[in-house]
Amino acid sequence: MNFAGKGVLVTGGAGFVGSHMVDALVAREAKVTVLDNLSTGFRELVSSSSRVRFIEGDLLDQKTVNTAVEGQEFVFHFGANADVKDGLLHPRRDIEQNILATQNLLEAMRASNVKQIAFTSTGSMYGEPTLIPTPEDCPLPVQTSLYGASKLACEGLLSAYAFGYGFSCWAFRCVSMLGPRYSHGHVIDFCKKLRMDPTQLHVLGDGHQRKSYLHVSDSISGILVAIEKAERTEPYHVFNLGHSEWIEVNDSVRMICEELGVKPKITLAGGVRGWIGDSPRILLDTTRLRSLGWEPRRTIEDAVVDTVRWLKEHPHMFEARR
Amino acid sequence: MNFAGKGVLVTGGAGFVGSHMVDALVAREAKVTVLDNLSTGFRELVSSSSRVRFIEGDLLDQKTVNTAVEGQEFVFHFGANADVKDGLLHPRRDIEQNILATQNLLEAMRASNVKQIAFTSTGSMYGEPTLIPTPEDCPLPVQTSLYGASKLACEGLLSAYAFGYGFSCWAFRCVSMLGPRYSHGHVIDFCKKLRMDPTQLHVLGDGHQRKSYLHVSDSISGILVAIEKAERTEPYHVFNLGHSEWIEVNDSVRMICEELGVKPKITLAGGVRGWIGDSPRILLDTTRLRSLGWEPRRTIEDAVVDTVRWLKEHPHMFEARR
Repeated sequence: MNFAGKGVLVTGGAGFVGSHMVDALVAREAKVTVLDNLSTGFRELVSSSSRVRFIEGDLLDQKTVNTAVEGQEFVFHFGANADVKDGLLHPRRDIEQNILATQNLLEAMRASNVKQIAFTSTGSMYGEPTLIPTPEDCPLPVQTSLYGASKLACEGLLSAYAFGYGFSCWAFRCVSMLGPRYSHGHVIDFCKKLRMDPTQLHVLGDGHQRKSYLHVSDSISGILVAIEKAERTEPYHVFNLGHSEWIEVNDSVRMICEELGVKPKITLAGGVRGWIGDSPRILLDTTRLRSLGWEPRRTIEDAVVDTVRWLKEHPHMFEARR
Repeated sequence: MNFAGKGVLVTGGAGFVGSHMVDALVAREAKVTVLDNLSTGFRELVSSSSRVRFIEGDLLDQKTVNTAVEGQEFVFHFGANADVKDGLLHPRRDIEQNILATQNLLEAMRASNVKQIAFTSTGSMYGEPTLIPTPEDCPLPVQTSLYGASKLACEGLLSAYAFGYGFSCWAFRCVSMLGPRYSHGHVIDFCKKLRMDPTQLHVLGDGHQRKSYLHVSDSISGILVAIEKAERTEPYHVFNLGHSEWIEVNDSVRMICEELGVKPKITLAGGVRGWIGDSPRILLDTTRLRSLGWEPRRTIEDAVVDTVRWLKEHPHMFEARR
């Protein structure tokens, strides 16, 4: 796949990961359209390149989606609810913003004969996996969160469209990403609390939850390697996207506190999970993607520190929505 | 679980499988409410017992669902689009009638504090499985039909509600069912064609697709055994429901023709699949359900012949919708 001169739609292109992909596509000289409702994204994160057209609109509005899709050659679908933790407070949110939004996009693509799509799924769809590191073809998991269930449902739609209507689809089951423009997750939560009160920090779970993270620059390179190099003999491609390292929540806390120069008293909520549906162990087997020549360049510690530094330089993120 | 005197809702209770479950529940002296929109069900299939209340209504109408759910102790959720073959002609149908309908039901249950539900999923969610017979924890499959994808999505919702809101859920991944009241599938399609013209029969695929089927009476007994006997230590239970036998489409054709007393010239469309998304080999590993003491009493041949006899006695089924 050579993106130069091609029309490429990026849904959620004003968000954390989407905006980085827009930059990567601009560098590849694609003609980029961004569709984002700015519910969690920020207009100022979108490249100001003349190669980029911005549409403020919602994936639940079929007409807007149709307009955005028309004439494109490739779609990157990042627009989604990305919050796992509070899913139980909003049980319809994942179904609407993830499942229905994705079908609207697929229907717009079908109507316009646009047939190539890359989608960010999640390692959360592995629930509490019986195999760690978890490969893409692990034993069929039980869903423990609405977020994971909704992303698995989206993958099902993508593959059914791939087999049924001749689409080419790439799905990426990602660990949590870190790095510049990060706006949601445990690092910002901890930094925010420590700004309010640097003398103490309350941590969900027992601190021993072990998880893998990935720097957003490594995520972008992984997605592009898969699309550019994967064999196109199959209509549906799925790749884990994560680091071979994992760290404890306690490690995250230490790294964040060191970078902020604070020494809070830590209190632990207890329990092996941070919240209902939290998977206490997340480590993905990325052999499939590595076989195409990709590997992460940043360590997890590097990614955590980079995130904290960026947040320090962009304190308005603490006041922003969510 | 003892159903005597308990309030039990059966969605799709005017349909093929649902109406048999209503009969089984009446025999167990449950107080049954049927919710059915009669889009593919028939009012006359619903037991006329005074223990049964019938509500004609749609799962997409939240108010009606709330009314039907209120005060129940257990829900059997059979109401769904059950057609796999023509899914690509109606790409939103499975999402609306299966995913959204199921979430409406779960939300009604949450609002009324009704927390026990049994759901009929499908063996089609295994796509084209790499393991045959296919166990419940087979390698994570790729969805090849919108129907399979939608049922997998429903299972995801059920398990997320089970873990998140304390529901107890039973999901049954079923092969195609046969027997009295059957109104949709290859047996009625073949019988219908042979009524029109007994001299020839056109068969989709190469005739060698091998599939398992189950008599509806064995399905009902399997579902009830699982609910009545499964350990309740886990919030989410999933069981394959099928026969240990499988037959070729060619075998089905022979059995149907013999029972009808016709000798048509058979023409084959060719190809290993009957249609896009058709799985050419369906055989489920039912060790999990058998370990609870269940086994099918009817052979597949017996089930096919029973279905053809019932259709001969109820020729109005050939004129009915679908």
